[in-house]
Amino acid sequence: MSQSIPNIISQKVRPQAREILQKVGDFVDNDCLPAEELFHAQIRTDERRWKEFPPVMEELKSKAKKLGLWNLFLHSHYKEGAGLTNVEYALMAEIMGRCPISSEAMNCSAPDTGNMEVFAKYGSEAQKQKWLTPLLTGDIRSAFAMTERFVASSDATNIQTSMVKEGNEYVINGQKWWISGAGDPRCAVYLVMGKTNPKHDNPYKQQSIIIVPAETPGVTILRPMHIFGFDDAPHGHMEMAFENCRVPAENLILGEGRGFEIIQGRLGPGRIHHCMRSIGVAERALDLMIARVTHPQRKTFGKFLYQHGKIVADIAKSRMEIDAARLVVLNAADKIDQQNAKAALREIAMAKVIVPNTTLNVIDCAMQSFGAEGICQDQILAEFWTGIRTLRYADGPDEVHTAQLGKIELRRAPELYATYRILH
Amino acid sequence: MSQSIPNIISQKVRPQAREILQKVGDFVDNDCLPAEELFHAQIRTDERRWKEFPPVMEELKSKAKKLGLWNLFLHSHYKEGAGLTNVEYALMAEIMGRCPISSEAMNCSAPDTGNMEVFAKYGSEAQKQKWLTPLLTGDIRSAFAMTERFVASSDATNIQTSMVKEGNEYVINGQKWWISGAGDPRCAVYLVMGKTNPKHDNPYKQQSIIIVPAETPGVTILRPMHIFGFDDAPHGHMEMAFENCRVPAENLILGEGRGFEIIQGRLGPGRIHHCMRSIGVAERALDLMIARVTHPQRKTFGKFLYQHGKIVADIAKSRMEIDAARLVVLNAADKIDQQNAKAALREIAMAKVIVPNTTLNVIDCAMQSFGAEGICQDQILAEFWTGIRTLRYADGPDEVHTAQLGKIELRRAPELYATYRILH
Amino acid sequence: MSQSIPNIISQKVRPQAREILQKVGDFVDNDCLPAEELFHAQIRTDERRWKEFPPVMEELKSKAKKLGLWNLFLHSHYKEGAGLTNVEYALMAEIMGRCPISSEAMNCSAPDTGNMEVFAKYGSEAQKQKWLTPLLTGDIRSAFAMTERFVASSDATNIQTSMVKEGNEYVINGQKWWISGAGDPRCAVYLVMGKTNPKHDNPYKQQSIIIVPAETPGVTILRPMHIFGFDDAPHGHMEMAFENCRVPAENLILGEGRGFEIIQGRLGPGRIHHCMRSIGVAERALDLMIARVTHPQRKTFGKFLYQHGKIVADIAKSRMEIDAARLVVLNAADKIDQQNAKAALREIAMAKVIVPNTTLNVIDCAMQSFGAEGICQDQILAEFWTGIRTLRYADGPDEVHTAQLGKIELRRAPELYATYRILH
Amino acid sequence: MSQSIPNIISQKVRPQAREILQKVGDFVDNDCLPAEELFHAQIRTDERRWKEFPPVMEELKSKAKKLGLWNLFLHSHYKEGAGLTNVEYALMAEIMGRCPISSEAMNCSAPDTGNMEVFAKYGSEAQKQKWLTPLLTGDIRSAFAMTERFVASSDATNIQTSMVKEGNEYVINGQKWWISGAGDPRCAVYLVMGKTNPKHDNPYKQQSIIIVPAETPGVTILRPMHIFGFDDAPHGHMEMAFENCRVPAENLILGEGRGFEIIQGRLGPGRIHHCMRSIGVAERALDLMIARVTHPQRKTFGKFLYQHGKIVADIAKSRMEIDAARLVVLNAADKIDQQNAKAALREIAMAKVIVPNTTLNVIDCAMQSFGAEGICQDQILAEFWTGIRTLRYADGPDEVHTAQLGKIELRRAPELYATYRILH
Repeated sequence: MSQSIPNIISQKVRPQAREILQKVGDFVDNDCLPAEELFHAQIRTDERRWKEFPPVMEELKSKAKKLGLWNLFLHSHYKEGAGLTNVEYALMAEIMGRCPISSEAMNCSAPDTGNMEVFAKYGSEAQKQKWLTPLLTGDIRSAFAMTERFVASSDATNIQTSMVKEGNEYVINGQKWWISGAGDPRCAVYLVMGKTNPKHDNPYKQQSIIIVPAETPGVTILRPMHIFGFDDAPHGHMEMAFENCRVPAENLILGEGRGFEIIQGRLGPGRIHHCMRSIGVAERALDLMIARVTHPQRKTFGKFLYQHGKIVADIAKSRMEIDAARLVVLNAADKIDQQNAKAALREIAMAKVIVPNTTLNVIDCAMQSFGAEGICQDQILAEFWTGIRTLRYADGPDEVHTAQLGKIELRRAPELYATYRILH
Repeated sequence: MSQSIPNIISQKVRPQAREILQKVGDFVDNDCLPAEELFHAQIRTDERRWKEFPPVMEELKSKAKKLGLWNLFLHSHYKEGAGLTNVEYALMAEIMGRCPISSEAMNCSAPDTGNMEVFAKYGSEAQKQKWLTPLLTGDIRSAFAMTERFVASSDATNIQTSMVKEGNEYVINGQKWWISGAGDPRCAVYLVMGKTNPKHDNPYKQQSIIIVPAETPGVTILRPMHIFGFDDAPHGHMEMAFENCRVPAENLILGEGRGFEIIQGRLGPGRIHHCMRSIGVAERALDLMIARVTHPQRKTFGKFLYQHGKIVADIAKSRMEIDAARLVVLNAADKIDQQNAKAALREIAMAKVIVPNTTLNVIDCAMQSFGAEGICQDQILAEFWTGIRTLRYADGPDEVHTAQLGKIELRRAPELYATYRILH
Repeated sequence: MSQSIPNIISQKVRPQAREILQKVGDFVDNDCLPAEELFHAQIRTDERRWKEFPPVMEELKSKAKKLGLWNLFLHSHYKEGAGLTNVEYALMAEIMGRCPISSEAMNCSAPDTGNMEVFAKYGSEAQKQKWLTPLLTGDIRSAFAMTERFVASSDATNIQTSMVKEGNEYVINGQKWWISGAGDPRCAVYLVMGKTNPKHDNPYKQQSIIIVPAETPGVTILRPMHIFGFDDAPHGHMEMAFENCRVPAENLILGEGRGFEIIQGRLGPGRIHHCMRSIGVAERALDLMIARVTHPQRKTFGKFLYQHGKIVADIAKSRMEIDAARLVVLNAADKIDQQNAKAALREIAMAKVIVPNTTLNVIDCAMQSFGAEGICQDQILAEFWTGIRTLRYADGPDEVHTAQLGKIELRRAPELYATYRILH
Repeated sequence: MSQSIPNIISQKVRPQAREILQKVGDFVDNDCLPAEELFHAQIRTDERRWKEFPPVMEELKSKAKKLGLWNLFLHSHYKEGAGLTNVEYALMAEIMGRCPISSEAMNCSAPDTGNMEVFAKYGSEAQKQKWLTPLLTGDIRSAFAMTERFVASSDATNIQTSMVKEGNEYVINGQKWWISGAGDPRCAVYLVMGKTNPKHDNPYKQQSIIIVPAETPGVTILRPMHIFGFDDAPHGHMEMAFENCRVPAENLILGEGRGFEIIQGRLGPGRIHHCMRSIGVAERALDLMIARVTHPQRKTFGKFLYQHGKIVADIAKSRMEIDAARLVVLNAADKIDQQNAKAALREIAMAKVIVPNTTLNVIDCAMQSFGAEGICQDQILAEFWTGIRTLRYADGPDEVHTAQLGKIELRRAPELYATYRILH
């Protein structure tokens, strides 16, 4: 799989990064893509699918570790990381996006990446030793428990889970859903968001993040949530209950009321990863479409599919939109590198809105070129489409980001009256 | 559920049809919608889901029969039917579309409706007695086996299943997929398309349709095809093999080489049904969206959802597009009534292209307003979206219909040169 | 030019209307279309273009009168009219739309049609005799002076022109712009909107409509407004001043404070006319596109234009969108016929939003197929595009109508909670 | 006017370029924008508008020269230029795009820029001295005469103008249209494309470019072509005849049959300029929209315009699309800098398609926010819209570029079969 680095970013990719990039591409092509079918075959169709994990994944992980393709996501400012910039890692995330099982094979898959960043950035030494270490080695997995069913969680101040301090413990009560990765039998720890300070004047200071080990009494997995019919076992997106769960007070991360600080710090680079993996998804969808419409066996009415209607125009449009979207993401990644995630707020928001919509369009065209085969289990396209569709609301819906971007623009009004001599 | 008949069609709906329409609406509201949850709960999650059928359906069928809401789809020219015009039935199909289980409850569900029409229109008396009678009473179900996996079936001349006459039998060999309804334990008969005359000069005269009872030796269900992540058990869309299946020669419908004639006769009204059910789907999606965005529990940042961004504009756009699309379908239905399906070719093609695309847009907006809940098993929207998505290629992809409509327009060129005095 | 009556409406077009329709079609084809070039050639390029009117128009008017194609727009409830329903006239308006000069040739052009309706519906006998009579004979023309430059006129309560009663006269002061038809040397009368009752509690009772003869002292034409570079001379869209204009008190229409009542009564059918003429515009644009892309002289790279890219798909899409839009308008027209304009508020609003957007898309595709020729004076497409573009904000912008339609939908919420058992 | 350099390109803009950029911004803000109204007022409304040039332009040119803001477009490899890279100049072109008169004020306006590049790159020393020198000083202007009326010029092999060598002269016969700048009284020279070798086997070797001084006998300006209703006097887009025009043989550029080589060399950077000026246009349109919708005088129904409907969402969408489009252009510009225009073919084609479409959307939103004022002579938006609309077909229509991009993608098919193990 060729990886074309956009010209504009070319000089920012150091030789060592190019080398890793090449290795990632080879590993995905030669090891991960060929293992996809086996991976799916190793997932049971009955309840055991939540209790076992496809063994082929451990083989891939071993190989990736040997190749040094491990924890690439951890940026240069963490000593545990591979020393890559956001721009450099973004290019690798794109390649990983093409083959969904490859991210975990290189210990670069969500939500663990974000959780590891939280531990690395905000964790105490004890917290790091206990949780970050086994996460970095790939021995355990983790989940981030924020969203709740009965409130509008896109405004996180609505979150209701309570965390009451009793002695040297916090007692946690609440119900969460869409907890990705909580279905995984290897998931050993949850980062849970809830209210330690429900009466704080500032609603952004009421929430905290606490570490809850998976075996804590009172933690119950209620059911897997389905994404357009998929339950994504064994990973899963689970509905869970926390009933009188007691954890030591030192499990709190950073301190009471600092939940918003943590989730905001967690989001920036994570959104870049999601976006670049989505670009990789779009590239693979386009590849599949091209392969399909040039296929002699798929001729209809005496012509190749690509000779019909607007298929070539759709392919060109997809190419243009993918390439434009990639530049938007890389520009945001570069701004994080040059400044930081907060400074790149606008650029990240743009990427967050543009990329999933672009990718969905590309996949939809590709699916259409495959007819019935495009939306079934014999092609990866339906899984791609449904997965990317969730990104239009996950981490804040399009509408919220769009409204913010619009408001930022409106603030320019006074300056504009002056420039264009518009009387007010 | 109020049913608003568009003004333009109002005078074409006779009093007796209005009465039935009202009854259908009440039955759907009071009996079917409340049974939806139970219906889904009665479907097993293990392999038994292909062997049992949710008992609540038989209760609904009994009630519908008592109410006289049975076989409404069979048009006035069949003595077995309810005497409704296509326009009148179309209005009922829209209501049925809002609640997917209601069509079968009134014995009006695909593919049985199309199959019953084939028997009624083209079947011999013996064929009618054996198959049409139990289908009309709802005692058995049926499937239509046309599409094949390894050829581009959107050009049906590509279909490869062979039907070789040996003595007084046909021997059938072939592999089919996406055979909807073949998963149903009550499915007793297949209408199979294949080549009896593979060497006929005219490729449109090579194919025939033959009746294959489900218990015929050599018929094997291979696997259910998934629509995105749904397998639609127990109905199912199955991959099947026909290996040396022998059926009596009199099982042939109409005669050798008349397959295309039959499938074309089957499609016209069936497309109207699909389209109007889709309109019903769009209406329900819009209803759900309105209910969501006005819900006090879903306020974010201090406002109702409808007060954010472009939600009201999206609702208005959905309303406009649904109402326009409905008129397009009713115009086609009316042309079938006034003339026939062949004369209404253009109008049907337009409806076939416009409606699924419109409905998908509406559902997508609605899903977005529900966030994560919109795409999971707790709302019907994801099931709606995936189901309607298949209509963009089933019975001919958008692209084929669009190309045909375009070609019909191009034929007007000579007349235009004259009107506008354009020299050629 | 063939006129295809949509099937769904066919039975509502009476034989006498079909006869007129045929005559209108023939008159447009045989007389108006061939006169278009001459009409444009007879418009001066210097200031005289505001003082003369192309003589060919009077010839066309004479012929139309002889053919009985005169004042067709006046609906059956006015004794002066042709006795056509809104649906019947709508079909004729579509034909007129194909050739912009044909409307006036049959005395069916805006804004005179709306003004004649105002006189017929609300005028006193004296007002009718003085103004309606010569308008109905085509001897004078008229304008409707509402919009003002420095206020947001899409909310007509903002209109500032003052009308102060002094003795038996009103003294009018105000500035208006975009007064269509005020450039015409034959324009003899303005219907002016302004505030007679600026302190009325109800802002919808402050405005009145008064008749201002063109020769009234104090009326000044300031300048023509341009539409994308066109000034539409001699018709024109003028900026005007009313300075201490004095008119007799009996020039008031209906009475003080009844301005909103009048403008609302004027709008309904007028919007249908605009929409159907737009449909006619779209049809001609599509015709021109088809003629262009099939033209042997326009081959590029060895192929006809229609063999390139997505042109056939664009043509098909245009056909579908035009046909759908026409049904939307006819449904609204029929509701006015069956009930009245007020009852058809929603349907008219939909037509008002859908049609111009659809038509603009069609024209844009057509222009693109003509390249540079498509946007210049050698084809009618640029004039069409700019004219239709104004309909997206004239008589209320898309946004206002969309917001209203959205609000109407939101009102259904309580009923929906009940139907779908959604708890609130 | 603030100029924000996208982060990703920031390090490629040298300090000296930043300094010039700042000066360009100041000059446009402080000198050009305030002169716009006067410039338009100085254009006559009668025939004299083709014979005079607004004097304010010479004042602006003097000032620009003094500021050293002159011939910025000529790239570093020409000794006459300002030594800027394509990326650096692109940023300036964007600023110029905001104020259309500013390009000429800095001697950076089309078609002269492209013509100067032709002289600089392909001209003989004598040709340079005679034509490049006065063009570089701004003493004369020039035009490029390629497009012909009666052939499909988007395939330039169709061009028919003949150039027959007789002795030491070429005799030129042909008719051209849309010759931009030919209306300008200061236009002294045409670069004319035509066939010197009509029988050459390779149609791409039949055409040549020859220099035709404006005063050559046989050159006639026939009429100005209109863009929508604008004639863009005094610049103009003229239809012209060349009848038995005789020019010395040494006026040929490069040699016989090298026309395609020259026009291709001319296009690359020129397209970047057009694109970046378009981005500037989009920025100004967005600025105007923001100024309008925040304006207290434009409140309707008690709210600011921005509080209605989807206006904020439209603004955010415009911002995202502009920023994405800019990155696409800069990426292409950078590839020209790093490699050359030929290597950047794909990137340039993408920019060529994406930018005008994006800009048209932004302007259309902005126009809509201004209502009637948005499309008339009181705002620059209508002029912007019509000007940018021509870029969708000028230098090759969207469709041609899209088809090429699609074909390039299809070529990747064989590699894809291997990667994804798709059997063929």
